[in-house]
Amino acid sequence: MDKERVVIKLSGSLFNFDTTVERIREYVDLIIEVNGIYQPIIVTGGGRIARYYINICRDLGLDEAGLDMTGIMVSHLNAKLLMSGLGELCYPCPPKNLEEISLALQSNKIIITGGLYPGQSTNATSALIAERANAIKFFNATDVEGIFDSDPNKNPLAKMYSSIHVRECIDMLKNEKSMAGTYDLMDLISLKVIERSKLKAVVLKSSPDNIRKCVIENIKLGTEIII
Amino acid sequence: MDKERVVIKLSGSLFNFDTTVERIREYVDLIIEVNGIYQPIIVTGGGRIARYYINICRDLGLDEAGLDMTGIMVSHLNAKLLMSGLGELCYPCPPKNLEEISLALQSNKIIITGGLYPGQSTNATSALIAERANAIKFFNATDVEGIFDSDPNKNPLAKMYSSIHVRECIDMLKNEKSMAGTYDLMDLISLKVIERSKLKAVVLKSSPDNIRKCVIENIKLGTEIII
Amino acid sequence: MDKERVVIKLSGSLFNFDTTVERIREYVDLIIEVNGIYQPIIVTGGGRIARYYINICRDLGLDEAGLDMTGIMVSHLNAKLLMSGLGELCYPCPPKNLEEISLALQSNKIIITGGLYPGQSTNATSALIAERANAIKFFNATDVEGIFDSDPNKNPLAKMYSSIHVRECIDMLKNEKSMAGTYDLMDLISLKVIERSKLKAVVLKSSPDNIRKCVIENIKLGTEIII
Amino acid sequence: MDKERVVIKLSGSLFNFDTTVERIREYVDLIIEVNGIYQPIIVTGGGRIARYYINICRDLGLDEAGLDMTGIMVSHLNAKLLMSGLGELCYPCPPKNLEEISLALQSNKIIITGGLYPGQSTNATSALIAERANAIKFFNATDVEGIFDSDPNKNPLAKMYSSIHVRECIDMLKNEKSMAGTYDLMDLISLKVIERSKLKAVVLKSSPDNIRKCVIENIKLGTEIII
Amino acid sequence: MDKERVVIKLSGSLFNFDTTVERIREYVDLIIEVNGIYQPIIVTGGGRIARYYINICRDLGLDEAGLDMTGIMVSHLNAKLLMSGLGELCYPCPPKNLEEISLALQSNKIIITGGLYPGQSTNATSALIAERANAIKFFNATDVEGIFDSDPNKNPLAKMYSSIHVRECIDMLKNEKSMAGTYDLMDLISLKVIERSKLKAVVLKSSPDNIRKCVIENIKLGTEIII
Amino acid sequence: MDKERVVIKLSGSLFNFDTTVERIREYVDLIIEVNGIYQPIIVTGGGRIARYYINICRDLGLDEAGLDMTGIMVSHLNAKLLMSGLGELCYPCPPKNLEEISLALQSNKIIITGGLYPGQSTNATSALIAERANAIKFFNATDVEGIFDSDPNKNPLAKMYSSIHVRECIDMLKNEKSMAGTYDLMDLISLKVIERSKLKAVVLKSSPDNIRKCVIENIKLGTEIII
Repeated sequence: MDKERVVIKLSGSLFNFDTTVERIREYVDLIIEVNGIYQPIIVTGGGRIARYYINICRDLGLDEAGLDMTGIMVSHLNAKLLMSGLGELCYPCPPKNLEEISLALQSNKIIITGGLYPGQSTNATSALIAERANAIKFFNATDVEGIFDSDPNKNPLAKMYSSIHVRECIDMLKNEKSMAGTYDLMDLISLKVIERSKLKAVVLKSSPDNIRKCVIENIKLGTEIII
Repeated sequence: MDKERVVIKLSGSLFNFDTTVERIREYVDLIIEVNGIYQPIIVTGGGRIARYYINICRDLGLDEAGLDMTGIMVSHLNAKLLMSGLGELCYPCPPKNLEEISLALQSNKIIITGGLYPGQSTNATSALIAERANAIKFFNATDVEGIFDSDPNKNPLAKMYSSIHVRECIDMLKNEKSMAGTYDLMDLISLKVIERSKLKAVVLKSSPDNIRKCVIENIKLGTEIII
Repeated sequence: MDKERVVIKLSGSLFNFDTTVERIREYVDLIIEVNGIYQPIIVTGGGRIARYYINICRDLGLDEAGLDMTGIMVSHLNAKLLMSGLGELCYPCPPKNLEEISLALQSNKIIITGGLYPGQSTNATSALIAERANAIKFFNATDVEGIFDSDPNKNPLAKMYSSIHVRECIDMLKNEKSMAGTYDLMDLISLKVIERSKLKAVVLKSSPDNIRKCVIENIKLGTEIII
Repeated sequence: MDKERVVIKLSGSLFNFDTTVERIREYVDLIIEVNGIYQPIIVTGGGRIARYYINICRDLGLDEAGLDMTGIMVSHLNAKLLMSGLGELCYPCPPKNLEEISLALQSNKIIITGGLYPGQSTNATSALIAERANAIKFFNATDVEGIFDSDPNKNPLAKMYSSIHVRECIDMLKNEKSMAGTYDLMDLISLKVIERSKLKAVVLKSSPDNIRKCVIENIKLGTEIII
Repeated sequence: MDKERVVIKLSGSLFNFDTTVERIREYVDLIIEVNGIYQPIIVTGGGRIARYYINICRDLGLDEAGLDMTGIMVSHLNAKLLMSGLGELCYPCPPKNLEEISLALQSNKIIITGGLYPGQSTNATSALIAERANAIKFFNATDVEGIFDSDPNKNPLAKMYSSIHVRECIDMLKNEKSMAGTYDLMDLISLKVIERSKLKAVVLKSSPDNIRKCVIENIKLGTEIII
Repeated sequence: MDKERVVIKLSGSLFNFDTTVERIREYVDLIIEVNGIYQPIIVTGGGRIARYYINICRDLGLDEAGLDMTGIMVSHLNAKLLMSGLGELCYPCPPKNLEEISLALQSNKIIITGGLYPGQSTNATSALIAERANAIKFFNATDVEGIFDSDPNKNPLAKMYSSIHVRECIDMLKNEKSMAGTYDLMDLISLKVIERSKLKAVVLKSSPDNIRKCVIENIKLGTEIII
C-alpha cells in the first residue's frame, strides 16, 4: 500500500442519456488529481439508464434479484466511461467482487467499478469496498447537499447537519421521519457497515468542484458521519 | 420447472464441533422427503465453527468484509455435510452466486448452498435466492420457536406471534424494542426482500420434525410473516 | 438434440431509448412460438444505446477493441430484456463464448445471447453460433427488406434479390458497388462463415410478423443466400 | 506503461514436428533483446501441428467454429515453447482474451499468447491486441518476404512492395488478383483493424535476424503498410 | 444416475503424429457401443505429441510441474479428436477438474477428458475420476497385455497375471523387481486410490476389440486387480 | 524475481479447535521475518478440523476424492488465519492451482495457500509449488523432529537422521519398515517430486523458533534430504 486510499461513490445521476464527454472529462481530471494524493477507488451508480432497463425488465416479469443484477450491469457500463478517459492510469478490469477488489488494489492504480452484489445498493457496496481496502474515508457524492433534519424539498426551513453521529443517522432512517427519500444518501446497510468498521464517511453533492474541495483540499462540505 | 420450489435456511447451530452423523442424516432424510414434493433449496448457516474462525481472524486484524467471506467459506463446508448424505440427489457444486443458483435450478435436483455475498446474512441471501428461484415459500429454520412480542428469555409472559405483517416486523426490528437478539431470525434486508417480492415466509425452530410438519404436512408452526 | 435449431439475429434497432414493454413482448411471444418447433438461439444487437456509450468512450480515448467490448456489454443488457419475458423457458445465463453456447444448448431451452468477441459484428458471431449449434438456418432480422442490387435509399429502381449466391454476395460486398451501407446486413466474415459451413441464411426486415412468416410458416421473405 | 509496446506475430511455421530447441532458443534470445527496448507481445500461430489436429477433427465431423478453437489450443501449446525459454521474464499465464491481455500488460513483462477467438486468424487477433495494448507497431513475421504485386511463386517478375497503403492492400485482397494464397500475410479483418486504428504494420519474413533488424535496428525490411 | 458408469483410460499411444481418422473412428464407434450400456468416461493420455512438447520445454528450462501442465494440454487436444467423432453424444466441454467432472456427469452424456492435475499421471487421475463418478469399474487400456511377474520384454518366460491383489501389486511396484517400466500400467497413486475406494480395475492392451470384449461382453482379458 | 524463494509447509496440527490468536501471531511474526530475506510461500495443512469434517462426510457416503476436496477447503480456511495477521504483506487471494501460484508470485508478496489438488497430500502439493516457484528450499514443518531409522514412539533407541538421501528415503517409505506413521513427513509423491527436481528439502518439527533457526539462521535442524 503505497498511498492511503479513499472510496468515492459517484451518484448514478452523472450517467444519463444526455451525459456529455465534457462532463465525464471533468470527473476524469478530478480523479487524476485525487490520484496524486490517494489511491482512489471510484464506484459508479446505475442512474437513469439502469432505471430504464430495470423498469422494462420488471414489467416483463424479471424477479427483483434479477433486476438488481441488471442494474449492476449498467453501473459497470458507466464505469467504462470513466475508464475510457483514464486509460492506463486505472486498473483495466473493473472488479466484480471483493476478492477482485483486493487483487486490483495491489496494482496501485486507480480502481473504477460499479455495483457488486444483488440485494445491496451501490452505497452499501462502496462501504464494503472501503472496509476491504482499509480506506481512510468514504465520500458519497450524491444528488443532495447532505443529510437534513427534514425533507428540504418539503420544508424550506430544513437544516442540513454538518455532522451527525452514525447512530442518530440510523435512528433517523429507521423512523423514516426526516430522511424520507434519502435512501440514496445512505441506506441502512451502508450505515451499519460504517458503524461496524468505524469508517469515516461524508455525504456531499456530486460535482467535480465539491469533490475536489472535500477530498483534496480537506474543506468541510456536506454532512460528515461521525462514530 | 417441474416442481414448485421451497427455500429452507438451516440455522448454523446445526453445524458445530459436536455435530453427529446421525443428526445430519436426519436432516438428509427430511430433505429427501421434501424433494418428493418440492425442489428444495437448502441454505446452510455458518454456526459455531464460523464464529471460531471469525473471532481469531478479527483479533488478527482481518477487515469486516473479509470476516464475512470467512463465514461464507465455513457455511459452504457445512453444506458439504448435507451433500455427502444426499449424493447424486443434489446438485454437485454448491452455487457461489445467484447466476449459479439459476444454472443449478435447471438440473431439477436438490440445491444445497451456503452464504453467497459479504455484507449479507445467510437469511438475507436465502430471501434473495427465494426471489431468484421464484420459490413459493421461504422457511427460516432457526434456534427459537418464532417471533415474540418481547424477548422470551427475559420475559416469561412473552407471546409468540402465529403471524405478523412484514411491515410490523420491520417496525419491531427498527425499534429494537421486542426483538432484541433476534437478528438471527430475520434481519432487515431479508424482511425488505420479503416485502418487495411478496414472498411467503415462516420462522420456525429448526428440527427435522418441525420442518417436516411445516413444509410437508402444511401444519402451522412458528410465526408466519404475512404481506 | 431434441429439436432442430435456428439462429435468429435481432437487429439492435429493436433496442432503443424508447423501446416499449409491448414491443419486447411481441418478440417474446414470437420466440415462444418458434420454440414450439425449433430450439431458437437469439442473438441481440447493441443498437442505439450501444452507439451512445461507444461514442462517448471513443471521444474519451478508448481503443477500438475496447469499444467492441463496450458494445458487447450493451448487447447483453438487451438480451436481458427478452430473457425477462421468457422466464424459465430460456437458459438463465447468456453464454459469453462458444463453449458456453455448447453448454447452454444441452439444456434444450431457448438461448438468448448478445455479442461474444471483439473484432466481430453480432452478424458474424451469429454465423459462428449457427456453425457451433449445427443450426439448420440463420435468420438475420435487420432494418432493411433484404439485399438489393443497388442502394434502395438512393435508387428508386433498386431491385431486391429473392435469392443470391454467397459468392456473388461476397463479390458485391468487396466491390462495395451496390451494397453500400449494408454492412449491417451481412459483413464479410459472416458471409465467409456461411460459405465455409454451407449455412442456409436469410436476410429479412425485423418484425414479429415477418419472422413468424419466415421462420415458422416457411414463407419466402427477404433475400435468401444460397450456396 | 514503462516502455512502448510492439506486437510480433510469429508464423506458425516456426512450430512444427521437427522444431529444434536451438531454433526456439534463437527466438527466445531475440525476444529478450526486444524486451530491452520495448514491452514485446508475441502471438504464436498454430502451424502444422494445428493443421494436423484440425484435419482429423474435420474429417470426424467437428464444426468449423470448433476447428478454430482446436487451432487456438495448439497455438497456446506453441506459446509454451517460448515461455519455457523466457522463464520469469514473461507473464506466466498466456492471456485467453483481451481483458487478460490488459491485465497481463500491467506486469511490464513480456507477453506470450496464441489465438484468442474463433472466427479470427491469429493475424487479426494480433491486430486487435495491438489496438488494446496501444502498441506502436505490429510486426507480422510470416513465411514470405513481404507483399507482392503478383504471386512470386508463379510470376518470376513479381515485385515486392516496400510500402503499400492499407486501402490499396484491402483492394488487392478483395480482388484476389495478386494476393492469391497470401491470406496468411494479412487477411481482411486484420487490415480493417489496422485501418480503423491507424496502426503501423510491417509484413516480413520470419527469422531472428530479420526481426532483429526490423524491430530493434529499425532497418526497413519487407512491406510496410501505410495509412 | 440413469446408467452405471465405467472409466476407460485410453493410452496416449493411440494419439500420435500418424494417427488416422479411421483409427479414431473405430474408438468412437466403440465408445458409442459402450454408451448403450454404461455412461462412459474416457480419459485420453498425452502420448508422443505430449512427449515432443515436453522434451523441448524441458530443454528450454521449464520446471517439472510446468511440464506436467504441458502434457495435460496435449491430452485435452487428444480428447478433441474423440469428441469430434462423437458430436452431441458427448459432453461439449472436457472437464478440467473433479468439480467439472461432477457437473458433466449430470448431463448423462459420454464424458471425454484428459489429464486434470500436475503431479499425477492420467492413470492416477482416471482412478480419482472413477471415485468421484462412483464408477463400477476402471479399465486401463494400455500398451501391454496386462501385468506380468517379470518384464516380458526381457524374460520370454514372463507370466501375465490374470488377477492380482492390489496389495501385491503395490508391493511389486515398490520393489520395482518385476514391474520395471510398467509405470504406465498403474503407478502407485492410482493403486492407492484403487485400494482406498475398493475400485474394480482391469489392465488390458488397448484395441477396440479388446475393450469391446472386456467392457461390453464381460470377457476376462488382461489383468484384473482385486481388493 | 526480486528475492529467492522458500516454501514452508506448516503442519495442520497448528490449526485446531483450540488454536489461539497468540499462537498464530507467533507464526505471522516469523513469516514477516522470513520475508525480509526470502519470498516465503506458506502452505497450510488441514489438521483436526479437516479430519472432523472428513470423518462425518465419509460416514455419510462422500467419495474419497470428495473428501480430499473437503480437506482442501479447510486448509484454505486455515490459510485465512495467517493472512489475517499478515494483511497487505501477503497476496490477497490464496492461489487455487499452480497457474494462480505463478500469478501470485509476480506480486513479490508473501504467498499463503492450502492444498490444491485432490489425490495429493499438502506435502506433495508443497513440493510441486516449490518446483513451480523455483524455490531454493522446501521446509516441511511437521509434528516430529525429523526422519528416524525406526519409529521413535516405539523404539526408544530410534536414531534421527541428520541427513538422508532421497533414494534411501524412498526405499524406507516403500518398505514401510522404519517410517511407519510418518506418511505425514514425506509421502512418496513429494519425495519423487523432490527427486525429479533436485529440490533441497528439510523435515523439522514445527515451531516458530525451529523455523527461524532453520530458515533464517541457517542452523542445521531436523533431517535434510539430499539428492
